[in-house]
Amino acid sequence: MDAISVIRTKRDRGELTPEQIDWVIDAYTRGEVADEQMSALAMAILLNGMNRTEIARWTAAMIASGERMNFSALSRPTTDKHSTGGVGDKITLPLAPLVAACGAAVPQLSGRGLGHTGGTLDKLESIPGWRAHISNEEMLNVLDTTGAVICAAGDGLAPADKKLYALRDVTGTVEAIPLIASSIMSKKIAEGTGALVLDVKVGSGAFMKTIEDARELASTMVALGTDSGVRTVALLTDMSTPLGLTAGNALEVRESVEVLAGGGPQDVIDLTLALAREMLDAAGLKDADPEKALADGSAMDVWRRMISAQGGDPDATLPVAREQHVVTARSSGVLTRLDAYDVGVAAWRLGAGRARKEDPVQAGAGVELHAKPGDTVTEGQPLMTLHTDTPEKFDYALKALPDAYDVAPAGTSFAALPVVRERIA
Amino acid sequence: MDAISVIRTKRDRGELTPEQIDWVIDAYTRGEVADEQMSALAMAILLNGMNRTEIARWTAAMIASGERMNFSALSRPTTDKHSTGGVGDKITLPLAPLVAACGAAVPQLSGRGLGHTGGTLDKLESIPGWRAHISNEEMLNVLDTTGAVICAAGDGLAPADKKLYALRDVTGTVEAIPLIASSIMSKKIAEGTGALVLDVKVGSGAFMKTIEDARELASTMVALGTDSGVRTVALLTDMSTPLGLTAGNALEVRESVEVLAGGGPQDVIDLTLALAREMLDAAGLKDADPEKALADGSAMDVWRRMISAQGGDPDATLPVAREQHVVTARSSGVLTRLDAYDVGVAAWRLGAGRARKEDPVQAGAGVELHAKPGDTVTEGQPLMTLHTDTPEKFDYALKALPDAYDVAPAGTSFAALPVVRERIA
Repeated sequence: MDAISVIRTKRDRGELTPEQIDWVIDAYTRGEVADEQMSALAMAILLNGMNRTEIARWTAAMIASGERMNFSALSRPTTDKHSTGGVGDKITLPLAPLVAACGAAVPQLSGRGLGHTGGTLDKLESIPGWRAHISNEEMLNVLDTTGAVICAAGDGLAPADKKLYALRDVTGTVEAIPLIASSIMSKKIAEGTGALVLDVKVGSGAFMKTIEDARELASTMVALGTDSGVRTVALLTDMSTPLGLTAGNALEVRESVEVLAGGGPQDVIDLTLALAREMLDAAGLKDADPEKALADGSAMDVWRRMISAQGGDPDATLPVAREQHVVTARSSGVLTRLDAYDVGVAAWRLGAGRARKEDPVQAGAGVELHAKPGDTVTEGQPLMTLHTDTPEKFDYALKALPDAYDVAPAGTSFAALPVVRERIA
Repeated sequence: MDAISVIRTKRDRGELTPEQIDWVIDAYTRGEVADEQMSALAMAILLNGMNRTEIARWTAAMIASGERMNFSALSRPTTDKHSTGGVGDKITLPLAPLVAACGAAVPQLSGRGLGHTGGTLDKLESIPGWRAHISNEEMLNVLDTTGAVICAAGDGLAPADKKLYALRDVTGTVEAIPLIASSIMSKKIAEGTGALVLDVKVGSGAFMKTIEDARELASTMVALGTDSGVRTVALLTDMSTPLGLTAGNALEVRESVEVLAGGGPQDVIDLTLALAREMLDAAGLKDADPEKALADGSAMDVWRRMISAQGGDPDATLPVAREQHVVTARSSGVLTRLDAYDVGVAAWRLGAGRARKEDPVQAGAGVELHAKPGDTVTEGQPLMTLHTDTPEKFDYALKALPDAYDVAPAGTSFAALPVVRERIA
């Protein structure tokens, strides 16, 4: 077995054998297959594809590269959610405590933002004292005592995926559905959750720009999860416009707490409840009532305990950016488009995101929206407020926004896309 | 400008801009673009192609990465030949002195064998004392005094190509026509020859297995040369069966000397003369008579002076392998196929070639043929003799040969392919 013959097989549109896949993942993890060989293989996979059998084996080989977690000692059924990433996607924050309040255990191993999409850990780190990195024992303890835990994945989980993901990031090979699917699912299966709901974003602010690509990614992942004994469901949800009214770390925590307090934007509430119902259903808790748990404050109680358990102060004042700049509507009428990607790029440039893995993020930076598609706007009214600690970034952020929205004449009939577009099980 | 955007352009089937090409070649040579990024780009080029404009710019950028040679001080016109590589392809050995004997200067910067194809330098190094590595000054001196020089290319010529070629070799990206064409032509244009004849091999023993691929490669290279002011012609020549009756280093030197002495196999004589006529014609020496120069010993005189000038003894006894094994015909009739690739692999396994760049080769190892397609053979007669210093390799070499030949019933009419199949100018 050698790297060149594996690369040639895929280059020439052949099917990789189980032996080739097991060998190449293991040899790459050990450093016997070089980065330049794996990147050539990744590009060949991106351009020539992998079939379901190959993707399943590739995923299994990545799982086998590291440890597997085990939640069987918990008294509650485990259920998890994974989002493919979007702009203003703070759903994990209200969702995890909500589902825990309904009786499930939610082990939410999360990531950081890269590019225009935010990361759950970056958001939570804007809460003074909160720690993302905890040991496996601590994690099990938080999960057992509060019902939910949101933390960084340990280094032992799917190390082949960590190495390959970093490589794909610098070689233009991120956007390969087989590699995206196996990367997500290897971590989730190794994590050991019993049930999993996938939130596959589709639209300008998502990796999947078309519903067809989103469907392919979702059905690939559902099949991988199901075949591995994880009850897996996917919702295809809209990411043509930001979720809620905020994109940025502390801004999104504030909005999440509003939702837990019974307020907040309707699209965030709707998606949180839709995902909660799927997670509870997949966990076998058919009688759970997430709407009640949100209304009666029990989800908020779990949130407070969960944040405290990782050193955070749920009552602390959240950081606010030092400078603000207001963008006003250039005409009057109906807002028919507010582009998720453009808003995400602006938030990123204001300091909410990072260009390289090692860059810091600003807790207070981001974009606050004052209108959403379907709303009536008047020329000169505030449309969004940009927040940053580094006001020299305003110009750069504003350059992302000239085509960020459309206003149609007053009276134009307009129907926004539903938040949940399709369900794949 | 950054590597990922260049990779994405080609990955998404776009055309690379001149600025992208200049930047990526320069940045790769300087080490700013990493090997894993260039290998992803090479795979994208292999699978998505480059158009003529891109290939021309890519070639120019590789030339610009190093020095250019200058033969304008010579009194004779320069003319060179390049073969894409085959089995038993010793043509450079009789050809360079023959063309020099007819009045041209032949600066033949050559390479070593890798895989199943032999390398000119490996062959000449079987002559006791002969040195492949000489300085640029020494090279010009040998060329000026004898009319021909065969030596290793210096490190200063197209360093980007050297780096890229080594990378392609380990990443399954050798077989990309745009990269093969630009690799060959960047070295030949930087070398500064005035005329160039390309011997593009086609068939089982060549990189190009089909006449269509060979045509595309040839016409791409002819256009690159012509556009750079080099008078360039290509012959597509047969490589379905080995050239001549030998494949192996000293074995091929011996056969080449036979041709220079007025003997040797007809296909080697024919191809040597065909290429000599093209080289002389491209150099503007329309009245030269290579057939006469071969017959009257003047080509042999140049050969002897050329070998001596690089420390070689033209009268020395050539190395002979310590062990021989004879393969006999398994039936009687007409030999209709003798596969170049299989014979090349057998010669390579016997020790004539190398698996890695740094491996040594055996001077005496290789395969000697006793029949060629079209010949009548009798069951049990010797078909080929295997030569090696390491007889434990016989079994491994023989494993390459079970399907190496076909024998049809006596009387079957059979016409071998002509050596020269097409001419592209």
